[in-house]
Formats: sequence, structure tokens, C-alpha cells
Amino acid sequence: MRPSRRQPDELRAISLDRAVVKYAEGSCFVKFGDTHVLVTATLEERLPPWLKGQGRGWVTAEYGMLPRATLERTRREASSGRQGGRTLEIQRLIGRSLRSVTDLIALGERQITVDCDVIQADGGTRTAAITGAWVALHDCLTWMRTRDMLKSDPLRDHVAAVSCGISKGAPLLDLDYPEDSEAETDGNFVMTGSGRLVEVQATAEKTPFTEEELIALIALARKGIAKLVDLQKLAVM
Amino acid sequence: MRPSRRQPDELRAISLDRAVVKYAEGSCFVKFGDTHVLVTATLEERLPPWLKGQGRGWVTAEYGMLPRATLERTRREASSGRQGGRTLEIQRLIGRSLRSVTDLIALGERQITVDCDVIQADGGTRTAAITGAWVALHDCLTWMRTRDMLKSDPLRDHVAAVSCGISKGAPLLDLDYPEDSEAETDGNFVMTGSGRLVEVQATAEKTPFTEEELIALIALARKGIAKLVDLQKLAVM
Amino acid sequence: MRPSRRQPDELRAISLDRAVVKYAEGSCFVKFGDTHVLVTATLEERLPPWLKGQGRGWVTAEYGMLPRATLERTRREASSGRQGGRTLEIQRLIGRSLRSVTDLIALGERQITVDCDVIQADGGTRTAAITGAWVALHDCLTWMRTRDMLKSDPLRDHVAAVSCGISKGAPLLDLDYPEDSEAETDGNFVMTGSGRLVEVQATAEKTPFTEEELIALIALARKGIAKLVDLQKLAVM
Amino acid sequence: MRPSRRQPDELRAISLDRAVVKYAEGSCFVKFGDTHVLVTATLEERLPPWLKGQGRGWVTAEYGMLPRATLERTRREASSGRQGGRTLEIQRLIGRSLRSVTDLIALGERQITVDCDVIQADGGTRTAAITGAWVALHDCLTWMRTRDMLKSDPLRDHVAAVSCGISKGAPLLDLDYPEDSEAETDGNFVMTGSGRLVEVQATAEKTPFTEEELIALIALARKGIAKLVDLQKLAVM
Amino acid sequence: MRPSRRQPDELRAISLDRAVVKYAEGSCFVKFGDTHVLVTATLEERLPPWLKGQGRGWVTAEYGMLPRATLERTRREASSGRQGGRTLEIQRLIGRSLRSVTDLIALGERQITVDCDVIQADGGTRTAAITGAWVALHDCLTWMRTRDMLKSDPLRDHVAAVSCGISKGAPLLDLDYPEDSEAETDGNFVMTGSGRLVEVQATAEKTPFTEEELIALIALARKGIAKLVDLQKLAVM
Amino acid sequence: MRPSRRQPDELRAISLDRAVVKYAEGSCFVKFGDTHVLVTATLEERLPPWLKGQGRGWVTAEYGMLPRATLERTRREASSGRQGGRTLEIQRLIGRSLRSVTDLIALGERQITVDCDVIQADGGTRTAAITGAWVALHDCLTWMRTRDMLKSDPLRDHVAAVSCGISKGAPLLDLDYPEDSEAETDGNFVMTGSGRLVEVQATAEKTPFTEEELIALIALARKGIAKLVDLQKLAVM
Repeated sequence: MRPSRRQPDELRAISLDRAVVKYAEGSCFVKFGDTHVLVTATLEERLPPWLKGQGRGWVTAEYGMLPRATLERTRREASSGRQGGRTLEIQRLIGRSLRSVTDLIALGERQITVDCDVIQADGGTRTAAITGAWVALHDCLTWMRTRDMLKSDPLRDHVAAVSCGISKGAPLLDLDYPEDSEAETDGNFVMTGSGRLVEVQATAEKTPFTEEELIALIALARKGIAKLVDLQKLAVM
Repeated sequence: MRPSRRQPDELRAISLDRAVVKYAEGSCFVKFGDTHVLVTATLEERLPPWLKGQGRGWVTAEYGMLPRATLERTRREASSGRQGGRTLEIQRLIGRSLRSVTDLIALGERQITVDCDVIQADGGTRTAAITGAWVALHDCLTWMRTRDMLKSDPLRDHVAAVSCGISKGAPLLDLDYPEDSEAETDGNFVMTGSGRLVEVQATAEKTPFTEEELIALIALARKGIAKLVDLQKLAVM
Repeated sequence: MRPSRRQPDELRAISLDRAVVKYAEGSCFVKFGDTHVLVTATLEERLPPWLKGQGRGWVTAEYGMLPRATLERTRREASSGRQGGRTLEIQRLIGRSLRSVTDLIALGERQITVDCDVIQADGGTRTAAITGAWVALHDCLTWMRTRDMLKSDPLRDHVAAVSCGISKGAPLLDLDYPEDSEAETDGNFVMTGSGRLVEVQATAEKTPFTEEELIALIALARKGIAKLVDLQKLAVM
Repeated sequence: MRPSRRQPDELRAISLDRAVVKYAEGSCFVKFGDTHVLVTATLEERLPPWLKGQGRGWVTAEYGMLPRATLERTRREASSGRQGGRTLEIQRLIGRSLRSVTDLIALGERQITVDCDVIQADGGTRTAAITGAWVALHDCLTWMRTRDMLKSDPLRDHVAAVSCGISKGAPLLDLDYPEDSEAETDGNFVMTGSGRLVEVQATAEKTPFTEEELIALIALARKGIAKLVDLQKLAVM
Repeated sequence: MRPSRRQPDELRAISLDRAVVKYAEGSCFVKFGDTHVLVTATLEERLPPWLKGQGRGWVTAEYGMLPRATLERTRREASSGRQGGRTLEIQRLIGRSLRSVTDLIALGERQITVDCDVIQADGGTRTAAITGAWVALHDCLTWMRTRDMLKSDPLRDHVAAVSCGISKGAPLLDLDYPEDSEAETDGNFVMTGSGRLVEVQATAEKTPFTEEELIALIALARKGIAKLVDLQKLAVM
Repeated sequence: MRPSRRQPDELRAISLDRAVVKYAEGSCFVKFGDTHVLVTATLEERLPPWLKGQGRGWVTAEYGMLPRATLERTRREASSGRQGGRTLEIQRLIGRSLRSVTDLIALGERQITVDCDVIQADGGTRTAAITGAWVALHDCLTWMRTRDMLKSDPLRDHVAAVSCGISKGAPLLDLDYPEDSEAETDGNFVMTGSGRLVEVQATAEKTPFTEEELIALIALARKGIAKLVDLQKLAVM
């Protein structure tokens, strides 16, 4: 039995609330159980220098965590003067995930910046962020379409993410923080609505794992992500 | 008539929600109209080096703003690598305000860090932060009392804050962002529950002001702060 | 009796020496007793990016303190890699104070940077800096007028500043460092030559204060600033 | 046909030279074709603060690239003042990979820091680094054993890594830079000598991939890593 | 004829004023013509970590320049967030020069920090700084002796410095800024009171120079430094 | 007898290998005994802003040291977030040395950046770097000539460098690290192929030295540099 009394293949309670802040072109407050992330999508008529004049846009992400999102207070990165490796790694992952389902040419020469700020962290902040970011991106694109800024829809598919891990030999879906700290192996899986893989990151700090275990984790993730995609569909309906 | 259709001496809709995050010893989500600030209070059994061994505790504050709390996206301070002057100035003000009503000896050799993170900004973020911070601090101290960590109550009084300004010659209470940008003079006023002054900061970038105008602003602030203190009392009842 | 044997409403010995460095367009070495600040005004034919093309100029300030301006050596901010909150707060105050008496349109699309470097600190460095900065700014504008760079005089009034505080219940003018450390309440007051208020910053870290006390401090400040403005007039005569 | 005329399942020319610098306790100059990485292992009798007193040691890694390791000169991170996200991500991966085959209790309360500096980069620098790092770590542990510093061997297995990708629909082993830029999907695979998985990181920025494709990449990686482990065995023989 | 109408072997007007700031244990305001440097010496009962417990003290220096010490305003290093290479190079030179005449064992386990801040720069700031720093160090040691903190005198000799250069083929002593910018070769020479060399730094960015020219520069420097040492003796008499 | 059994005027074993990395326009792996430096020269069609439009190019250098180039591991400057004073000082010296033999007008409006990265350090890294940098610069210019990018040869002469020091009263050529730590006086000497001086930097932290000693060191350096220039000629033949 999991500490949370969930079934091995059971997601935490998920919610995806839209339009939660006043100014952003798209926003989503996503909850995966006690993990709460506020996502905003900002449209800007500018591009990173290396992308100018190519007829393509860009989608990028930034990630942060409020100091007391965690059990013990974490030092504010603005005050320490640098974003840590974990932050940079996560925001790169979110950006890549969103770009995998976005037609950057259809977007035109503009940038959408997706900010994912963790209000409360109980494991799986990056997967919650990706899942909510798709909703915020969707709404930002809708905002653009309403203003006749797009000729065709740049959003080619859904994208969502979930973590899975092996704990005491058993594969578990959507780890919370206590499960995550205990897991022998854990992975983050990003998939599209059509079930294709965007990112697979599986790590074994304690015990190396087998290919069979990886395949089991992918199967579990596929199940969870299908559910998350359904919830995204409901959310933007 | 104010753009918001408020009376000159009318506060925005205020709310003070407690216990809004899971891990913090005290927390408050404070709204002054469209200005929304999440405040957490963290208790730590450590002190800044210069305060060690004096039999006194410390209360300090940090302030941040999510990138899309504002009309246009603001660069993340963690990414630019330093906290700006405005941030540092505000967090010093919040810390001083809280210490003015805290008995640091009664607190004992511990530090309470109050984090104020602006989720949405429509003027008056620092005054909303101070008003909500008192609630979070109060709850953190209650948390300690429940655990028999305090001999006497370190909280000597309420403290709350409001901005006032002179716009087209008229003194107005609790400026929202459009009013704030228009005001000839504006000030932030911090007062205790007993009506004494903790901080007065009045500034005229456009036109220098008279002492009479300052006194009118203080009278307005006093009225607003009395109301805010009543709301704090209701909130922690 | 004050430690310095001054009357409660007595300024320290003030001097305002002009043209103290060779290269600056305007400069002033200002002494408020043992507080010594070197102020230079630099004219540059450039503007911050956000101000370009608006037909207006800018006046800004930077503040620094030599490491051994203080009783104990203070770490050099260039070596610690960032300007502290106090430095940023003070330089913002100096800039606002000077802009309150400057017609930025008459200045034209140029920037004047006023550098205030504290050579010796005995309390009231920011008020001495503002008082001397007016002289340096005045001389910089004279330098421009001599070269036919100005159609009309951008300087609309004098601006000067003084600190006041309440120590053992008594209001005192122009606190030196020992008085400043003892004061229950202290404030910095910036006023124009015509006696209007530009900035009021009053703070009580120890005991909150009353409105009557604030009014008494303002009265005292008004008296001191009138004297400082007379000294500015003598200095630039 | 690959641009390099290699078979799809053919590694580049690999070499693992040991003891290439004078001072390090272990070192390896690893070549994967034109990708050249210098790895050193440094033993230090100290630990990160959070690990002290737990009877365990630590293995960590740092990664850097010489400015002209690349086709165009890259800015030196020491001069830009921060390590980029890619650098931090890679050095965390190398550290985790090494720790997955190290018994940290057998190591004792010491830290081994593995520095991986890329002298020349033609794709796959992180996989070359991991493969060479194992050799440097091995030699560092031998150095310790020779000095009777270890009771049992902390090295539980080999660990090596290789990249694989899908290019024009075909799975390819050990991508060089031109292949890497073209690939629709690419992944980095870290495995032990016994063929278990330590890390799987597969990414599709262009087109999401299928589970079958991932399995094909793993099979290819397994083949390559087996060969790399053989070469490690030869190298340390 | 030099632009300044000085003879080739003529120093600028030199002055060395002592006890110019209130708090420092030693201080000197040194002028080499229009180059003005404020030097303070601070005694602290602490040591850099790597020197602890060796029965020896340390003398170190920091160097800074006020923004408008120069013809055009220079950006404040505290605001740019790092000390430039020139600053670091100069402060290392000043520290070495002072240590060459100080008996660090006689000083005891304490640190003297010499701060050299350039108020006005017209060439030769580092040589003026060294020459004035000796006076500040001398007075700091006198301050210690008066308080019975020293058993023997740590100051073994004078140390002073001057720049020399070759301009249009002619060797010139104590270059001012216009001469310095024109010189084909220039050098900074640090010598003791007994005429021995502490540092020789001669550089040719335009035309490489001959050994004979170097010897001529040293002869000129020797003459100037002998005069500077006489002035130091007069100053501390 | 020197610890290395060399004669007082004997260089260490020197080697200058060219074209050691694939991408750089010029490169050299230089060994002075156990001091090994990898030098690359990068041609870029851009200039520092202050040099634009003057019809001249620029040659600059950067210097770094791998963490385990030294006996004990040195902290990576990319990780500490700033280049130290020693690094900045050395890279400025290398740049000046190369520019002293380069006709910047003949180079045209381009920049050559010479990166010197120390792989292994046993004293004299800056002199080895300068000596190898000439070879890399030479080859970069040859690369340009082959592509008809130059009308005339910008390289006016050889430049090479060596350290000399006085140890136990005896002048020694090309100090290795143990000798360098023992020396009373040491200097770095940069000379051209025609025997003229480019830089002389002689320092006495322990005992000030005499002019005669300096002249002896120069004589020794001249001998060594003549040999180094011969080796450069052989290398590029």
C-alpha cells in the first residue's frame, strides 16, 4: 500500500484552473495533490537574437520555487544571485516539451515565455508544471487567435508529463515527495496526446535498473498521461 | 470620481486568508483588490551571526514578485542575478514594521523569516504585504505557543499599512496602480493597532507638497489602517 | 544637553566647498560636522534606454562609502560584488530629490549623474549628500549655460535635507552618529527652498511615534533646511 | 551511409589513456573520435557540509569546455561569471553515473571530485566524459588502496555511456556533431558493466518518438556500451 | 620641453598630509600633482584563514577610484559587480610593496588593510598610492606602539614608487596622464629607502625597448624615489 | 645544484607542437618541462566596441587553469563566478606581449583571441603561454594569408618569455615550481626575436634586490629567450 493509500497506477487528485491571474495572456494553476504550480504564458513581440529573421517564433520557460514551498525553507535564488542547476535543468525540459508540440513557423516571429512558479512542492513539480503549461500556452494562443494574430493553429497536439518510480520493487505512478525520496529508480516522462514520447528521463542513483523495469514505467506513465490529457481537454473545453 | 468608483477614503476589497500553504508555520494570502500577495512565516532555530548570544530573536522579511504579476512581464531577479533596489527597500521596510510590534526578547534566540511573494500587482504591494505579514507572524507565534516554545507573547500590537496619495489635488486612500502612476504625491504609512506611527514615507517626484497635505494623508491612512486592523482581528479570531 | 553640546535646533558646522575636483562639470565637498561627502556632477550626452526620444533629460545619483569612512572598516562593495540595500535606497532618494526641483524638459536629452562618495561618516550622510548635490548640480548647469547648451534654467528651486530624531523624548535637529544610534525615532526630511516637502521618511524601530511628534520633527527640519538653503545661496553666490 | 562512413552500430575510434597528468590521483584522456576529454580524479579529505558525520563519502563531478573546443569560439564561463544550464546538467549527470557504481560507505568520509574538461568537441562530450571518468575514478581508488586507505573496494561495477539517435528514420550509435544536429531524436544512455541501466535521457525536439524507437536506441546503446566496458577493462588491465 | 614645463628628471609637486580622516589608525592624503589619493590604514585583530596560527601578521591593500576621478566618468565597480583586472593588479602591487619592508612576525597575528582611493587621477595613481601608503602604514604602527601592542618595530625601511617612461626617445620622470598616453615605454618602479628594488614593471606596448633604456629609467626612478623618501621622512617627523 | 639538476642557465625541456586541435585557426601545445599549456588562436570578424572604425585590428588573450593542473585542486573560476586577480593580470600580459610584435593595421578590422589553458602547472605558466601563443598566432596569420585575407604580414618579430629568479643568491633561468616558491626575487621577462625588451616584471616579496641582480637576471633571460626563439623558428619551419 502506498503511504497515500493510492493504487500503484493512480494519479493524485489533479486540477487545472485557468485564467487565474489578471494580466497574463494565458495562465493555469495546476495541482497534482499537494504540489501546486502557478503557470503563466506571456506573449512578447521580440525574439532571442540568434532567432531573428528566420520566420519562426520561440517558446521558452522559466521555473522558480517560492522559498517556503518546501518542508524547510529554501534560500531564494534571487538572493543567492544564481539559479541552481536543478532550476536550469527543469526550465530547459519544460521549454523543450512545449516546443515539441508547437509549430514555431505558425507562431510567427514572437516569443511566448511560460513561467512556472511552485507555490507548494510535494514531488513532481516539473511534471505538474509541464501539464499546466500546456493549458497556459493553449490559452495564450487562443488569446492571439481572437486578435487575428495567427493564420493557422501552432498547437499540434497535447503534451503532458508524469513521474513514475520503482519503490520496493514495485512500479508506482505519480510519486509524491515521500515516495520520491524512497524510490530506487525514478523517471520523468513527457508524452503527447497521441501517445508519442517527447522526453524520457530515468535515473537510478541507488540501484541500476533493467530494461523491463523501464518498459513497465513507460506503460504506467502512458496510462497516467492519457488521463492528464483528458483533464486538459476538459479544462480547455 | 476615482477610476475604480471608490470614495476617496474607501479601501479596495480586502481579504486575509490564513493557512494557505501546507508547510509554513504561519501563512496568509492577502488581497487588496487586484493586488495579491502570498505571505509565509518560517521559524528557524538560528540567528544572523551579529545577533548571536544576546538573548534576543530576529524577525526579517524577503520580498519577491512573480514575473507576470505585472501588466508586462518583469525579468526574474533570480535570472538577472541580483535583487533590485526596489526589492531590497521593500523587504527592509516590511522587516522593520514587524519588529516594531514584536518583543524580540520574548521571542527567544530564533529567527522568523517572512516571505512576501506578489502573485498579482495592482499598486500597494508593500502595504498589502505588511498587513498580511502581521497575520502570518501571528499564526507562526501561535504555532510556537501551542508547542510551549514561548513564555510570554512576543506580539505587542497589530501593525498594518496603506498607501495614500494626492491626485489632481485630492487625497485618496489605498491607491491602485493607475492612481499611483497619476499621483503628484504618494506615501506609504505603517501604523500600529493603537494608532501610533511606525513608518511614514511620503514622496513627491512631480510637485513638492505641503505639510497640510501630508497631515491630510496621515488622517486618511489612519482611517484605512483602523479598518485593516479590524480585518486582521476578524481573520485571526 | 546633547553629547555635542549643541542646542536641540542647532545644525552641526556646515561647509559647502565648490569646484573641488578638476574634471567634473560641477562638484561640492560638503561637511555636516564630521560627516564629509564628496559630490560630483557629470554631464553625459546619453540617456537611459527607456527615456530616449521623449525630449526630456534625466538626473540620477550614485552613492558610495569609502571603506574606512566608518568607525570600523566596512567591506568595499566593489569587492563584495553588489551594492547593498542601504546604498541603493539612498541613491534612489538623492536622485528623486534632485529631480523634484529640476525641469527635465529644459535640461534637454542629456543625463546628469551625481556621485556622492562618503569620505567620513558621522550620521546624516544622505542628508549631507542631498544638500551638497544641489550645489554640484547647480554648477553643472552653470557650466552648460556658459556653453550655450540651455535655453532656460532647468533649476526651479533649491533642495536640501536634514535628519531629525526623538531622543529621550526630545526632538533634535541634525543627528550625529551617537545620537542616531540612540534615537527612538528618526526621520530624513527633504524640502525645497520655498519650504515645500519633497520626501518625508520617518521610522520607529524602537517605539512607534505620534503624529504630534512627527509634526515637531517637521518643524525642526524646516528650520534647519531654511538655514541650509541660505548656506547654498551663499556658496553659489 | 553515415557522413563518417561508419556502420549504424559502429562506435567512433575510442581511446582511453591513463595517467596523463602529473598531480591527479587518477586521470584519463578519453577520445571518442574527434571528441577529446581530459578527466582527472581528485581525492580530498573533506566532505560537503550536509554529508558530514554519516560514515559515507561522496563522488562529484565538474564539467567544462575550453573556449575553442568548438567550431566557433564559445565564451569562457569563468569570464561570463556563471556556469550555464547545459554545464550544470552535464556535471550532475556525470556525478550520478559514477555514484551508481560506487559504494560510498566503503569509500569512507572523503570526497572524490572528477573534473571533465573538453579539449575538443565533436558530439557526445558527456558520454565520453562518463566513460573516461570511470577510468580516472578507478585509478584514484587504486591509488588509495596502494596507501591502505580502503578496507574494501568501493567500485562495484563498470559504468559507461554512449549517445544514440534517430536520423532520417534510422537508429545510429555514437553520434558525432553533424549527426547530432540532424537527428530527430537523440538520447544519452548510461549503463553498468552488467548491462543494467543507470540513466536514460531521450529527447525529441523535432518529432516525438515511439516506444519501439526508444527500445531500438537502447539496444544499440547496449551494444556500444558493452564495447566501451571492454575497452575500459583493457585500459586498466 | 614637457607639456607640464617640468625638467625630464623633475617630480610633480608632491604633498603627503597625515591624519586626514577621523577613524583610521593611519591615513595620508597624497598628491602627485593633480593625482590625489586618499590612503587609510586599518588595523584588525583577524587574519585571512590561510595565515592563522603561524605567528605572523599580514599587510594587504585595496584600491578604488571614484567615478569622476577621471576626465570622463568611469563606471563604479560596485555597480558593475566586479573589480576589473587593472584594479586587482594594482592592489596586489601595493600589498606586495608594503610587505617588502614590513616584518610580519614583529607585527603579530593581526592584519593591516590599506585602502587607496583615487579622488583625482592624472597618471601615476599606483605610485602615488604606494608612496602615501607607507605613511599611513607608518602611522598605524605608531598608533599600535603608543598602545604597547608591539615589541619591536615591524617597519624595516621606507618604500616609495614612481613611474618613468620614454617619450619621443627621452626618459622622463613621474609621468602625468598626457605623457603616459604618449609614452612608447613606461614603467613603475618601487624601491626602498636604502635604494634597493622591490618591483620593476616596464612595458612597451608600442615599441620594444633596449636594456640601456631600462637602465636609464631605473636611474631616473632612483633619483625620484630618493626625493619621495625624503618627503616621507619630513612628513612623519 | 638545482633540484632539477639543471645548470643555472639551462632551460627545461621545451616542446612546441602545432595544429593540436581541430577547429582553431592556429594552435600550439607548449611544454616547459612539466608545465603544459594548450594555446589556441581564434580569428573573429568583430572588434571590441571602442576599436570600431579605426582601420585597426586587435589581439587579445584569455588564460585559465584546469582545476587539477596543480598539486592540490584549485577551485574552478567558472564555478566561483569570477576570474581572480592573478588570471586577469596574466591574460593582460599575454595580450600586450603579442600586440608588441603585431602590426594591428596590417591585421585589418578583426580580432584574434588567444586562449591559453594550463593543463599542468609546474611554474612559469605565463612565460610558456606567451612562447606558445606566438606560434598559435603565427599559424592563425598563415591561415589568413592562405585565404588572401592579408595584404602584408602583420607579424613583425618573434616574442617569447621566460622567468628568472634569484635563489640562495644565485640567478637561475626558467624556474620550476619548487624553485619559484623558494626564490627571494623572481621576474618574468618578455623579449622579441631581435633581443629588445617587451615586458620586465621583477618582484621581491622576501628581500629587495639590487640593480646588479636585475641586470644579471636580464642577461640570463636574454640567453633563454634566444633559445626559445630558435625553437619557435624550428617549430614553424
